[in-house]
Amino acid sequence: MITSSEYRKRLSKLRRNVYMDGQRIDRDDPRMEGGVNIIAKTYDMPTDPELKDYEDVLTAKSHLTGKKISRFCHIHQSIADLLTKQKMTRITCHQVGGCIARCMGIDSTNANSVVTYEADQKYGTEYNKRFLNWLRDFQDNDRSACCAQTDVKGNRPWRPHEQLDPDLYVHKVETLSDGIVIRGAKVHNSNAPIVEWIPVIPTRRMTEDERDWAISVVVPADTEGVKLIVSATRFNTHKNLGTPGPYGTVDSMTIFDNVFVPWEHVFLNGEYEFGGRLALLFALYHRHSYTGCKPAMTDVLMGAAALMAECNGIEGKPHVGDRLTDMICTSELCYGTGIAAAINGERAASGTYIPDVSYCNVSRKYAGQNIYHEFDILADIAGGMPATLPLEGDWENPETRPYIEKYMARNPDVSVENQHRAFRWVQDISCTEFAGVMQIAGVHGGGSPRMEQIAILGAYDMEKTKNIAKRLAGIPVDEKYSFGRLGATPKL
Amino acid sequence: MITSSEYRKRLSKLRRNVYMDGQRIDRDDPRMEGGVNIIAKTYDMPTDPELKDYEDVLTAKSHLTGKKISRFCHIHQSIADLLTKQKMTRITCHQVGGCIARCMGIDSTNANSVVTYEADQKYGTEYNKRFLNWLRDFQDNDRSACCAQTDVKGNRPWRPHEQLDPDLYVHKVETLSDGIVIRGAKVHNSNAPIVEWIPVIPTRRMTEDERDWAISVVVPADTEGVKLIVSATRFNTHKNLGTPGPYGTVDSMTIFDNVFVPWEHVFLNGEYEFGGRLALLFALYHRHSYTGCKPAMTDVLMGAAALMAECNGIEGKPHVGDRLTDMICTSELCYGTGIAAAINGERAASGTYIPDVSYCNVSRKYAGQNIYHEFDILADIAGGMPATLPLEGDWENPETRPYIEKYMARNPDVSVENQHRAFRWVQDISCTEFAGVMQIAGVHGGGSPRMEQIAILGAYDMEKTKNIAKRLAGIPVDEKYSFGRLGATPKL
Amino acid sequence: MITSSEYRKRLSKLRRNVYMDGQRIDRDDPRMEGGVNIIAKTYDMPTDPELKDYEDVLTAKSHLTGKKISRFCHIHQSIADLLTKQKMTRITCHQVGGCIARCMGIDSTNANSVVTYEADQKYGTEYNKRFLNWLRDFQDNDRSACCAQTDVKGNRPWRPHEQLDPDLYVHKVETLSDGIVIRGAKVHNSNAPIVEWIPVIPTRRMTEDERDWAISVVVPADTEGVKLIVSATRFNTHKNLGTPGPYGTVDSMTIFDNVFVPWEHVFLNGEYEFGGRLALLFALYHRHSYTGCKPAMTDVLMGAAALMAECNGIEGKPHVGDRLTDMICTSELCYGTGIAAAINGERAASGTYIPDVSYCNVSRKYAGQNIYHEFDILADIAGGMPATLPLEGDWENPETRPYIEKYMARNPDVSVENQHRAFRWVQDISCTEFAGVMQIAGVHGGGSPRMEQIAILGAYDMEKTKNIAKRLAGIPVDEKYSFGRLGATPKL
Amino acid sequence: MITSSEYRKRLSKLRRNVYMDGQRIDRDDPRMEGGVNIIAKTYDMPTDPELKDYEDVLTAKSHLTGKKISRFCHIHQSIADLLTKQKMTRITCHQVGGCIARCMGIDSTNANSVVTYEADQKYGTEYNKRFLNWLRDFQDNDRSACCAQTDVKGNRPWRPHEQLDPDLYVHKVETLSDGIVIRGAKVHNSNAPIVEWIPVIPTRRMTEDERDWAISVVVPADTEGVKLIVSATRFNTHKNLGTPGPYGTVDSMTIFDNVFVPWEHVFLNGEYEFGGRLALLFALYHRHSYTGCKPAMTDVLMGAAALMAECNGIEGKPHVGDRLTDMICTSELCYGTGIAAAINGERAASGTYIPDVSYCNVSRKYAGQNIYHEFDILADIAGGMPATLPLEGDWENPETRPYIEKYMARNPDVSVENQHRAFRWVQDISCTEFAGVMQIAGVHGGGSPRMEQIAILGAYDMEKTKNIAKRLAGIPVDEKYSFGRLGATPKL
Repeated sequence: MITSSEYRKRLSKLRRNVYMDGQRIDRDDPRMEGGVNIIAKTYDMPTDPELKDYEDVLTAKSHLTGKKISRFCHIHQSIADLLTKQKMTRITCHQVGGCIARCMGIDSTNANSVVTYEADQKYGTEYNKRFLNWLRDFQDNDRSACCAQTDVKGNRPWRPHEQLDPDLYVHKVETLSDGIVIRGAKVHNSNAPIVEWIPVIPTRRMTEDERDWAISVVVPADTEGVKLIVSATRFNTHKNLGTPGPYGTVDSMTIFDNVFVPWEHVFLNGEYEFGGRLALLFALYHRHSYTGCKPAMTDVLMGAAALMAECNGIEGKPHVGDRLTDMICTSELCYGTGIAAAINGERAASGTYIPDVSYCNVSRKYAGQNIYHEFDILADIAGGMPATLPLEGDWENPETRPYIEKYMARNPDVSVENQHRAFRWVQDISCTEFAGVMQIAGVHGGGSPRMEQIAILGAYDMEKTKNIAKRLAGIPVDEKYSFGRLGATPKL
Repeated sequence: MITSSEYRKRLSKLRRNVYMDGQRIDRDDPRMEGGVNIIAKTYDMPTDPELKDYEDVLTAKSHLTGKKISRFCHIHQSIADLLTKQKMTRITCHQVGGCIARCMGIDSTNANSVVTYEADQKYGTEYNKRFLNWLRDFQDNDRSACCAQTDVKGNRPWRPHEQLDPDLYVHKVETLSDGIVIRGAKVHNSNAPIVEWIPVIPTRRMTEDERDWAISVVVPADTEGVKLIVSATRFNTHKNLGTPGPYGTVDSMTIFDNVFVPWEHVFLNGEYEFGGRLALLFALYHRHSYTGCKPAMTDVLMGAAALMAECNGIEGKPHVGDRLTDMICTSELCYGTGIAAAINGERAASGTYIPDVSYCNVSRKYAGQNIYHEFDILADIAGGMPATLPLEGDWENPETRPYIEKYMARNPDVSVENQHRAFRWVQDISCTEFAGVMQIAGVHGGGSPRMEQIAILGAYDMEKTKNIAKRLAGIPVDEKYSFGRLGATPKL
Repeated sequence: MITSSEYRKRLSKLRRNVYMDGQRIDRDDPRMEGGVNIIAKTYDMPTDPELKDYEDVLTAKSHLTGKKISRFCHIHQSIADLLTKQKMTRITCHQVGGCIARCMGIDSTNANSVVTYEADQKYGTEYNKRFLNWLRDFQDNDRSACCAQTDVKGNRPWRPHEQLDPDLYVHKVETLSDGIVIRGAKVHNSNAPIVEWIPVIPTRRMTEDERDWAISVVVPADTEGVKLIVSATRFNTHKNLGTPGPYGTVDSMTIFDNVFVPWEHVFLNGEYEFGGRLALLFALYHRHSYTGCKPAMTDVLMGAAALMAECNGIEGKPHVGDRLTDMICTSELCYGTGIAAAINGERAASGTYIPDVSYCNVSRKYAGQNIYHEFDILADIAGGMPATLPLEGDWENPETRPYIEKYMARNPDVSVENQHRAFRWVQDISCTEFAGVMQIAGVHGGGSPRMEQIAILGAYDMEKTKNIAKRLAGIPVDEKYSFGRLGATPKL
Repeated sequence: MITSSEYRKRLSKLRRNVYMDGQRIDRDDPRMEGGVNIIAKTYDMPTDPELKDYEDVLTAKSHLTGKKISRFCHIHQSIADLLTKQKMTRITCHQVGGCIARCMGIDSTNANSVVTYEADQKYGTEYNKRFLNWLRDFQDNDRSACCAQTDVKGNRPWRPHEQLDPDLYVHKVETLSDGIVIRGAKVHNSNAPIVEWIPVIPTRRMTEDERDWAISVVVPADTEGVKLIVSATRFNTHKNLGTPGPYGTVDSMTIFDNVFVPWEHVFLNGEYEFGGRLALLFALYHRHSYTGCKPAMTDVLMGAAALMAECNGIEGKPHVGDRLTDMICTSELCYGTGIAAAINGERAASGTYIPDVSYCNVSRKYAGQNIYHEFDILADIAGGMPATLPLEGDWENPETRPYIEKYMARNPDVSVENQHRAFRWVQDISCTEFAGVMQIAGVHGGGSPRMEQIAILGAYDMEKTKNIAKRLAGIPVDEKYSFGRLGATPKL
């Protein structure tokens, strides 16, 4: 496993193919610093004394090599691995107060581990062998990856092959002797500018007419033809108040302008039914990640709300208790159902464990429906100050600071400086570009509530439920009673 | 294990101490038939060919005798037992379309198994020995029990010892050489008139001043001094439409008018701290039951809604999909979090397993908040017909039946007779006394959402969550990062 | 204006064409008593000393004759009339604790007043003259009417002329020299068995192919060929506790088995565009009635909740205040928006005033979305007692009454007898067939939330709203700024 | 009436007492430009040809001089004035896509007009005369004002006179022969740095011990001792995309460091009961303003959502219709209830009209509860693009623009440039500091939902509602039926 400085060094060596606000920029551009710091933090956590108790959560034993590796590079070998990954996600998000960024890599990697194997079984291909070769390096060298899934999609009601421009979904444009050439663009592509590898997978089920869109590849982030147009946010930007970070987000519109991919990095190539399988499987793993990160986000907002209540001197007031309970319910329903998803996980043919579809999706959907509500609760308890707090320069200015100190005083048990820190941080997370991005990511990241609805209805056997009703109504039912939604027979 | 006819025979032999609407009645009074049929059904399920696949769920091996017993008499010996009890609850509720009634017995029995042991450890008493003696007969003879917990409570803001009348909470009024005498009344006492045993436990934490209220006893349902004033409902009351049941509910105001309890049936006698422990522990087991029965109730209402959509010819319409998804999320969040409660269960000193407090309570609270909403969804999809359907007599009457047949025709793929059955049954469950009782039980049964809120806040370590926020805000925190809400380290 | 005894006398003289539970019944059958008592009450209210202050609200001056008439027979001549009708609806519903029943008549009558005039203007017909002749008798003799609108509709996705049986929507089957013959059935037909006149109008917009379905007639309730198959509820059925009523609901499946309608009672006959106009206009008037009756229903449930809080000794507790505020907001948003609907009402060509479409529909939709929630609040504050209260016979029985008196005692400032009355009545309105019917009527009566959604979107000029956005986004807009949803220029 | 250039000129002449981020700044500092542009816009609107149809809405006839004045300087003389002010607020907010800023002035001015008169009536003071003198100049010279109401409040559970520092609520510290001296600070003080006058009023009811806090004054914005520490936001900051504005918000912590106020500007001086009256009355007027501006904000967000649906090619999809209907209901329930507030307004002794307390508060509370939900809807329909849109520089950069143009293409009926404008603007209003400020202002501006709850419960006669229930339950009631919440007898 490497340290954050090695990670930063690797980033600095990549070809300059990143663009922001009209310029080509370096990967250590201060505007991307928030995202870089988060991934860097993941490299330092396994040896962080603060997190010593969680070392087993943060690392795993490679099933390929038996070596101790970062859990962010691990293929889930058991239900315990699924549970532990959920825990790791929650813990690590707590440290940075937001998305931990490296889940994209672990989720796409696990999905590829399953689907390459299944495709090989059906077609006698060698995708899984290629994948495992790549994975060995990935684990041994503790590499970082994202996942380029969401296509730009053009006009929403049309399918990939119906668009006016076929490039609106990333697809293969040419097959060469030594590999393939792909073209298109992925959006909302979190962290692509700050990782080493970009796995590229389909965004939806594909039809037989869409074989060229049913591809899975991995691409070095600075490969010829890849261009990353960045949007980024940063919070915790205090100057002199001693806050960690700064942390933030980095997304890109990732352009694949006739990018060549050698065969060794091609993990699917036209097997359209497995294209859809891969799209859904990555989404599934990623929604299981949400059963860890979303409760963590709720924890952060709940901690913020509780801190605001303390500063305002209203801890213990009934309406504060009501709202905090509301937040506890959100985090624990989401996390608890994520545990059920892990417990009911199943072993794929490849040996990789897959969490339960229904539990992952109801948990993610519930989280997505609550994110704005949680910001509402925080605003309710905080009051208006996060929206109108004087800027940090005024806190530093000797002409204005005495006024701010005098008039910010609230609960006498909390120093005014700590109250100031608290309100400034809550401003950071609720009245900034970052806040808007977290809100929208809370709704759409890993699939919007509507996508989860489709998955939930698709996975549900409504006839069995209807049969419960029919029997009670005296309507003849042809089959014996059975019910699928009871959960696994426990092996405990 | 016994059959339903043996159960009915036992009931018929009990002393006549049941009152309803101004008269003393027999226990086979038709107005209580709905409840009796449900408990009878639990006796027939283990040998029901329809449920053959679920035999292991419905039965267990006694840890006392090694014999095969009804799981409704079992003390949970493992996490697997907790998971299986949750399953059993869901399955059995499906069969009767509502509360399965015998959960009261299993939940009070498990709670007594834990608390008698703990009290003995502290005080050197012999409550657990007495309890196990009683339990042996209970298991061997497959007996039925309820749980008399909720006191009438008088003026709500006052504690037991502050009430104008000390009897407003059941308490010991005399200690004799061979036992104690108790007085008071329990309300909302489900099933007391149709079971053999009435366990009596405290309704809340008790203070040192309230030792006389801190008692746990078991009382035969027809003991001298016990009087049961009944309210009951029945649904599925079709005359000639071939429906199962009728099923329904039976509750009583259970009067203890100077009831003598011999020592062998006294399981707690003034150890006030264990009085509170027992109250909360029964509630906890019972809320875990709700993680099974409440999803079952949602399944019934969802099945009803899907059946209505079929009859109305609107299956597959987007707004129907929206609402059914909503119901799936309710059942699966509730059930999934119940799984997490079991997985994170802990072994008490007595060897009995106890589910996790937080997960049980957030699940139960969520269920309670959704019950009226589910009836709303059913009404939305069914339309107005369940409220205005002509009575069954008009369906039988040759003068009116042709009109009803002609004008009830909807989806041509469903026979008018089955449509009629479907609408009549939905009327049974949504426009009757039973519906109101199910709604109120959905809110308050096993503890109202407010009770769960108290449990949730009480069990939650908010300082740890606040510390997450403080670290991010740059406010010094004295202790190393840790977080309690991550779930058990899996033993899988 | 007549008295209730005259109303009852008229009912008793009608031909016996009412059926219930397998038998032909009299109109004074005790099972319909609840509904009859409500309409009877409307006849006594104008002279009720209790309501003396509201006499001007309850009566009006006929625009035909200048005589003082019941407002339930009045055609709205001004915005003040619309406002006063809304008030009357709320006041009168308070008296009976539910639907006041006669709104159906006033709403269908006003709709006919507008549409007959408009049809005449276009086609030179004499519908309005016929209507006014009929209206003169209706007002002079203070007659009662319902409105038969909702067809049975067969398979929902099919239009009237696409159904397998054309009778699934009421239609004209023959034209004779002296009138027409109609066939079909209306459902959820509130109060048809307890009024003198049944106006029959279309249930939806009609196409050119559906001229035979586009009819408006009035039919005496006991005309040859009309058969009324009844469902009914009753609440407030205390025996000796001195409650008003009993009140309740009466609905019927109303069969028109080749009913002859003379020309003088035919108000529309195939002018299909006016069929849709009439359907929507009745719905609109009726939704404006809901802006009065739904707040009244909330008032009743809120009064019940406040009474329960008083009995339980928890008045003034914060969570009680939260929930009561919630109910106040429901009633006042609904009623306030109904005021806006009246204020923005417009004068039709006939001189009749019509309330604003958008405000009526958003108000009704909001009410419909909240009805189950209100029952939830009532259950929350009342606790479980309404579900398990011993029956009235046990209250009367000297053997059980002392127990009930002793153990029902709660807030010492309220007599136990009054507590008993309060809980029994709350049981009446929350755990009975009536409760289910009120809930479903709350959702679907006057049009389900989905119907309101269609009306709301249909009436809304979304382009104007989109133009606000386009201007702010810098997207060129061709027309000058204007905005339709500002309300009438006040004439105050 | 003046033009925007005169307004800007006046601002430029004020003493430099504004501080931001560590520096003393000019009032035309670009960071405050967003707010200045909004107030400037209000000066140009009455002569804007685009708004010609609304001239009567934007202007009024002074009751003092009979001259045509800006309605932002007008004292409401009728119910029509209340209705028109609500309209003006909605229209003008549409123009700038947010808060119109000058409502603070009109609301504080109307409140002072009422309370000065009432105090004079009781105490024989001459506050109203002073006020009218000041008002004449205010109207004649079309001046701008804010309202400094919200004190910093220190520890929330303590009253003003209980705080450790008496300055935590603004109060009088000295009485001189020619006036008084005040000290303290107001927060969330919208627009104080960009107006000419700062009215200062109490933030809550005052007790007899708090006479020194019960003051009302007006202070020139640049008076000696006033210091304004600013926070500000700006949106619509496109460089080359032809958008209006930029618009934004300006708030300050407004310091009163021993500020001298001459008698002519003192409108209340220790009459503590009128201090509370003034606090509530300003809040009431301001909440009535919210019944105009909050629907406008919903219109903006709804227009944005509809525009996003157009760009995404999903207009007319059922789930889009569901969500837009939701937004229409929010805006129209809020606005409709605001109409009811105006219609039920009452004339104060001074001749000023006051809107109804209950309707204003339920409307404002409903708006406040929905603001985050509306952003949620916008995010749902827009998708993730507003969170990750490449920056404007990349749109300008010839190296990246072709990619963005190619890959942003969605609905072919909308030009890519207009799609780009639309998404960029939605980013401006949902993923910026401005968005967070709008959200928090939506909750707390003009009083948080909890403040409205207090007002709603305080104004509500719950006994009358409880009496409705008691009568129905058969519980004797001493007084005749009456009900207060029926609305005014219409004078139409």
